[in-house]
Amino acid sequence: MLADLLTTVFERRGRFTWSGDDDSRKIAELAEALVGTDGEMSGQKLGRIILGRFEAMEPDEKKTFFDHLARAMDFDPEGVRKALEAYEANPNRTTYAVFSAAAEPKRQEFIRRLNRVPQATGQLVAMRAELLKHTRTDPALAALDYDFQHLFSSWFNRGFLVLRPVNWESPAHILDKIIAYEAVHAIDSWDDLRRRLQPSDRRCFAFFHPAMADEPLIFVEVALTRGIPSSVQDLLSEDRQSIDAEEADTAVFYSISNCQAGLANISFGNSLIKQVATDLAMDLPNLKTFVTLSPIPGLRSWLEEQGRALPDDPETLRALAAHYLMEAKRTTGVPRDPVARFHLGNGAQIHKVHAGADLSDKGRDQSGGAMVNYLYDLTKVSQNHERFATKGKISATSEIRSLSAGGRKLLAEKAGA
Amino acid sequence: MLADLLTTVFERRGRFTWSGDDDSRKIAELAEALVGTDGEMSGQKLGRIILGRFEAMEPDEKKTFFDHLARAMDFDPEGVRKALEAYEANPNRTTYAVFSAAAEPKRQEFIRRLNRVPQATGQLVAMRAELLKHTRTDPALAALDYDFQHLFSSWFNRGFLVLRPVNWESPAHILDKIIAYEAVHAIDSWDDLRRRLQPSDRRCFAFFHPAMADEPLIFVEVALTRGIPSSVQDLLSEDRQSIDAEEADTAVFYSISNCQAGLANISFGNSLIKQVATDLAMDLPNLKTFVTLSPIPGLRSWLEEQGRALPDDPETLRALAAHYLMEAKRTTGVPRDPVARFHLGNGAQIHKVHAGADLSDKGRDQSGGAMVNYLYDLTKVSQNHERFATKGKISATSEIRSLSAGGRKLLAEKAGA
Amino acid sequence: MLADLLTTVFERRGRFTWSGDDDSRKIAELAEALVGTDGEMSGQKLGRIILGRFEAMEPDEKKTFFDHLARAMDFDPEGVRKALEAYEANPNRTTYAVFSAAAEPKRQEFIRRLNRVPQATGQLVAMRAELLKHTRTDPALAALDYDFQHLFSSWFNRGFLVLRPVNWESPAHILDKIIAYEAVHAIDSWDDLRRRLQPSDRRCFAFFHPAMADEPLIFVEVALTRGIPSSVQDLLSEDRQSIDAEEADTAVFYSISNCQAGLANISFGNSLIKQVATDLAMDLPNLKTFVTLSPIPGLRSWLEEQGRALPDDPETLRALAAHYLMEAKRTTGVPRDPVARFHLGNGAQIHKVHAGADLSDKGRDQSGGAMVNYLYDLTKVSQNHERFATKGKISATSEIRSLSAGGRKLLAEKAGA
Amino acid sequence: MLADLLTTVFERRGRFTWSGDDDSRKIAELAEALVGTDGEMSGQKLGRIILGRFEAMEPDEKKTFFDHLARAMDFDPEGVRKALEAYEANPNRTTYAVFSAAAEPKRQEFIRRLNRVPQATGQLVAMRAELLKHTRTDPALAALDYDFQHLFSSWFNRGFLVLRPVNWESPAHILDKIIAYEAVHAIDSWDDLRRRLQPSDRRCFAFFHPAMADEPLIFVEVALTRGIPSSVQDLLSEDRQSIDAEEADTAVFYSISNCQAGLANISFGNSLIKQVATDLAMDLPNLKTFVTLSPIPGLRSWLEEQGRALPDDPETLRALAAHYLMEAKRTTGVPRDPVARFHLGNGAQIHKVHAGADLSDKGRDQSGGAMVNYLYDLTKVSQNHERFATKGKISATSEIRSLSAGGRKLLAEKAGA
Repeated sequence: MLADLLTTVFERRGRFTWSGDDDSRKIAELAEALVGTDGEMSGQKLGRIILGRFEAMEPDEKKTFFDHLARAMDFDPEGVRKALEAYEANPNRTTYAVFSAAAEPKRQEFIRRLNRVPQATGQLVAMRAELLKHTRTDPALAALDYDFQHLFSSWFNRGFLVLRPVNWESPAHILDKIIAYEAVHAIDSWDDLRRRLQPSDRRCFAFFHPAMADEPLIFVEVALTRGIPSSVQDLLSEDRQSIDAEEADTAVFYSISNCQAGLANISFGNSLIKQVATDLAMDLPNLKTFVTLSPIPGLRSWLEEQGRALPDDPETLRALAAHYLMEAKRTTGVPRDPVARFHLGNGAQIHKVHAGADLSDKGRDQSGGAMVNYLYDLTKVSQNHERFATKGKISATSEIRSLSAGGRKLLAEKAGA
Repeated sequence: MLADLLTTVFERRGRFTWSGDDDSRKIAELAEALVGTDGEMSGQKLGRIILGRFEAMEPDEKKTFFDHLARAMDFDPEGVRKALEAYEANPNRTTYAVFSAAAEPKRQEFIRRLNRVPQATGQLVAMRAELLKHTRTDPALAALDYDFQHLFSSWFNRGFLVLRPVNWESPAHILDKIIAYEAVHAIDSWDDLRRRLQPSDRRCFAFFHPAMADEPLIFVEVALTRGIPSSVQDLLSEDRQSIDAEEADTAVFYSISNCQAGLANISFGNSLIKQVATDLAMDLPNLKTFVTLSPIPGLRSWLEEQGRALPDDPETLRALAAHYLMEAKRTTGVPRDPVARFHLGNGAQIHKVHAGADLSDKGRDQSGGAMVNYLYDLTKVSQNHERFATKGKISATSEIRSLSAGGRKLLAEKAGA
Repeated sequence: MLADLLTTVFERRGRFTWSGDDDSRKIAELAEALVGTDGEMSGQKLGRIILGRFEAMEPDEKKTFFDHLARAMDFDPEGVRKALEAYEANPNRTTYAVFSAAAEPKRQEFIRRLNRVPQATGQLVAMRAELLKHTRTDPALAALDYDFQHLFSSWFNRGFLVLRPVNWESPAHILDKIIAYEAVHAIDSWDDLRRRLQPSDRRCFAFFHPAMADEPLIFVEVALTRGIPSSVQDLLSEDRQSIDAEEADTAVFYSISNCQAGLANISFGNSLIKQVATDLAMDLPNLKTFVTLSPIPGLRSWLEEQGRALPDDPETLRALAAHYLMEAKRTTGVPRDPVARFHLGNGAQIHKVHAGADLSDKGRDQSGGAMVNYLYDLTKVSQNHERFATKGKISATSEIRSLSAGGRKLLAEKAGA
Repeated sequence: MLADLLTTVFERRGRFTWSGDDDSRKIAELAEALVGTDGEMSGQKLGRIILGRFEAMEPDEKKTFFDHLARAMDFDPEGVRKALEAYEANPNRTTYAVFSAAAEPKRQEFIRRLNRVPQATGQLVAMRAELLKHTRTDPALAALDYDFQHLFSSWFNRGFLVLRPVNWESPAHILDKIIAYEAVHAIDSWDDLRRRLQPSDRRCFAFFHPAMADEPLIFVEVALTRGIPSSVQDLLSEDRQSIDAEEADTAVFYSISNCQAGLANISFGNSLIKQVATDLAMDLPNLKTFVTLSPIPGLRSWLEEQGRALPDDPETLRALAAHYLMEAKRTTGVPRDPVARFHLGNGAQIHKVHAGADLSDKGRDQSGGAMVNYLYDLTKVSQNHERFATKGKISATSEIRSLSAGGRKLLAEKAGA
């Protein structure tokens, strides 16, 4: 579909069959040559060879290559100082350009030039996924990753992305990836996938980037229901009766999955739910409520830090979960729970907490089966977002607030006991 | 066509009808706010307001706005120095990120954030077109333009572009733009356009960017002929008989037009001819010769600098033209003629020079009617390009070289006389 | 667009390049052979040759060919009688099939087999257009035309047609045909066309058949207005200010054109206006009124038959026009005016008559400049249609009815005078 | 994909939501009314109701409905005679039209009018599939089926069909149907399907009709191989190594499946293989051989009729199989084996017979595991087809002819024994 149009006739037909890698230079030399060349055509050939070599490397060779980028293609502090002085002495376009170039490590230009090769964007995303395996332990590679992130933020900015429905009429090779990338409630077969896409009361939407047209970047799965559901197993049951989309009053965002490890920390998902909600509201005027049914992935580990196990009693569980969502913060002041952070940052409200809502092994393990509905009230998301972003205020129903108060008391009692 | 797929369902239907510009802050404040916000949604709204305000501004207001970007959103040299020292003292991701941010003027992030607004890319290109009116006279604005150019080089890199045929089955609103943007041999009506697109022996190809899907960036018009033509008026004659594409042995690139003033000096046209030639060669195996029929825009003015007028004698004209193309250089050593620079940089050869080849007013004025064929020999373009790029060697036929030698003699005689 | 998908890869690329017409038989023999063969491939080749020969014929040769079809490929009455008796004696599938085949002239099967050739449908439509030049004068050819009409009714039935918008993003070769086929208010240039397609308050829709994907069959042009217009020149004025589609309360169908002479009397336009109106009503909820601004093509000639000239006085003109539309009938009882017949048959109401509404030469000539609005009230079209179809009842406003009564009186006075 | 374009905007969005079946008349009355009405809109409503009612009927009610069509909507022999006389007395268009109408049962017009309803074509195909359950036992229903077949032959003629590749980028709902309709070598899972579509050395093509855009009509699966394969299990093995398409020298058509029971005996598959072969030959110039690997479904039952069991000895099996293919005929003289009939009728040659080629239960049961390659030599198919169609000549290699002679001897010996 999209891919047919986005890749040109030429590339589709594989017409630029390059003579392949007939270059005897080492990859480090090729990288230098790529940054040095001013020819688009020779640059494309170099880029293609480099990407091909990288793909074929063993993990330790890749690490060596990253080390080279991080060290040998870094910027030169002395050069920066000199260029800065020259600029200050005589600020004009030329001195500014020289300074800018000096302050930017050569590897940035290197990555940009690799990206000129057709289909390179996806390969660069994969390259960063590989790099991210080393960034925790190696500060120089972490700095290198900053360059990737900086460039990807520019290339994957929201204005370049395309939001498209994914359904049972979508190409199989895209659906393949939905199965592979589903991160919340695993899709275990094509029949399972069909149950999430084909019924009249199911929807799915994904963001795509034109240069990686076959790869969803992030997708959300939606169930259209009557009323707000309190169990994901009921929602996904094989035996459930589907309803007509027109009969539904509620849209439930029950799964949101990032697809590309190499796009970690590139933000583009924030507007996804709001866009999908706005569109569904237009198509299905009976929809009044837009809500998630979300996991609480950090509940157990947080409780354990408080010296508590996951309680068996549903009411106790709900109270502690509400308290965790409302009060557990990182040192930076943002909510500790990553899912809460995402939805609250989008302007959602903590609407309801359910016990016994996710009885899968994963659900029991991470939160004792508790789940939460985040509510997207389209008339309030901007205001909620603003208050959360500027003042750290979390929007929640009074029920949640009083549950949370109860949870605080329980913890205090325990601590006092 | 493309646009249908590239803009999402949502945006097409105009669903995100923003409340409009209800913000009482000045544009400079909005710009600060945009760079400061971390919310995607509030950022989109701010960006939309800023782009709307800019579009409505008078030219002098736009200049004032550019001044603000250039001066108030510049980088801070002291900040750079401090961040550099911190980085050197303790090089890690955080210190590197701080340094990188410090070395980059805030206006870069400002432009990147504007680009998150749907449809913004085209508006930013138009913004730069406006900016370019001032860059010759105002060094600060020239520096600002460097930031635009830097970002556009990244966004419009070859890997993101899509090459597509333009023909009589293309949408009228795209064809409108072909008429408007044709820069070499003006298209004076829809009938004229039809003569360039519909016949079996005519082709046209353009590069598009997915975020500006209705706007060609650069396009090339091709005539399929028997033999190499020596007159553009014959080539475009209303009365000419078209031939079957399969009968042609030669593809003539007779017009290449950049479409976007705001993309000046963003290089993406270099591979256009090679790609089109490669594709045509696959579809039409009888094609053996790929050649331009190009103007020599700088001939008259260069001759005048040599104290010569355009000669009437065709042979004299050809000799001087060959000499000009071979020998007239800028101080940087590259050919003085911009069209020669483009094609020789792409790896083409100076193949033949014709007198009486462009009898339009423009053609007579700039080169006394002389034109030149640059030959794209697909087996030699890489090698030609390399020798030109690295050693400044111009590839030319022996006929051209001996013509050029004759031209040199003529000039010397004249000078000696 | 459509064409890309509808013709297969194979046919698009012209891969079935037939060896051409290497057959020495006469076309009449080829026609016999085509009906006789049972091979799909040999049939396609024969069909292709026949269609090619026909296209190249002079008009008189075409007539001779039609004569052959009409006479030599007719059915055999004796064969029918025998087959009928056999069927009556022993009614089963075989005897029925023999009878059916006997009762159908061979030329029907001949036409069906021609239609198996890719792209043949359009050629057959053109063939019938040629045939229709002779059907008035030659009863045998009129009978032959019955066979074409019978088959075309089946092939062009409403269920096979596709309704699509035509706009400024449509392919130029389709727009070419809109210009050529506009039958009511001529489009005199691409700029005129643009004025009818590009503004926010203009729409156009056409029916297409998948086997003739580049050829509109019928199209309607729509103006979105505030209030019901009374002048087509105002509606199409170059200087008019367009309005936002959302501001309009009225959709005016101001031109409906059949495109294919060879599809005369194949009915598929009846649902066009109702469909377009239904769709516009969904997209633009502010639209409340769906109305035509239609010519009255038969007014002058009818008045002349009544011994009256077109009056100068606007009120007299309106009264006579209303009377003509309401009362002038063919011997079969249907309205004499073809445009009235079409819209009343669709279930529209005669809403208003205007003098001075079409000041073009054609408008003055046929109706003294008078025009009429037919109103499509979507809640009443079915009922109106039924009453018109079964009882000949014409729906009209009381104003029209009293105007018509006045017109009757005027005619009577005149006759009495 | 196709469906998006083929169904109009209006119908896609389900805009014509009919008031439903609010008609109190019986279906037989509705059928009369549909044939009687001349209004397109009222006809569409009637048709929709009738189709809806039919779909909801129990099998015996459907049979009753067919009886009604067959008997009450038959033609009237007396009417035919009278109309015939009137035509002979005065042959013109009117008398011809009256005769034609009289000789055609009303049910034909009934079916045509049902087909005007959007999406009706598929429902009519399903209706015929239901009808075919009764045609063997009920001659009147067999006659009724003739009318369906007559109309379907016209609607599904080759010129209206679209050949399209089916691959791993095809929509899942189309692939669903490939799984369901595969009739030769069952596809038992999505993974099995993927193995037939995704590898570089596999292809699949299907014919579609624009009015049933989501339904393949017939499809062929192709394996690209080096050399002619002799075992379908090897061809479809999970463990096999795929090769590059460019390396293959042979295209093997290993499965052809008709998809629509309701299109039985509507011939459109004949050109499928030739078209696919022609196209593959263009795309992959290394392909030299186009061949099937086909079952021999009638071998066992024919041998049994000859008093022979399937032999164990491979050579004996091959000889008997060759003899069966060459010599076993129906009373009409055409080959008894349906697969042989299809390919020989298309102009193929019997190329090679293999023992142990299909070791599935089905393959062992019907032919003792024997299979046959039919060769499509594109330079000879027309000639082969012609000789087969006109003279019943079967094209075979000399190896097959001598095998067949051996088979004859074996049978004679046996008989003589």
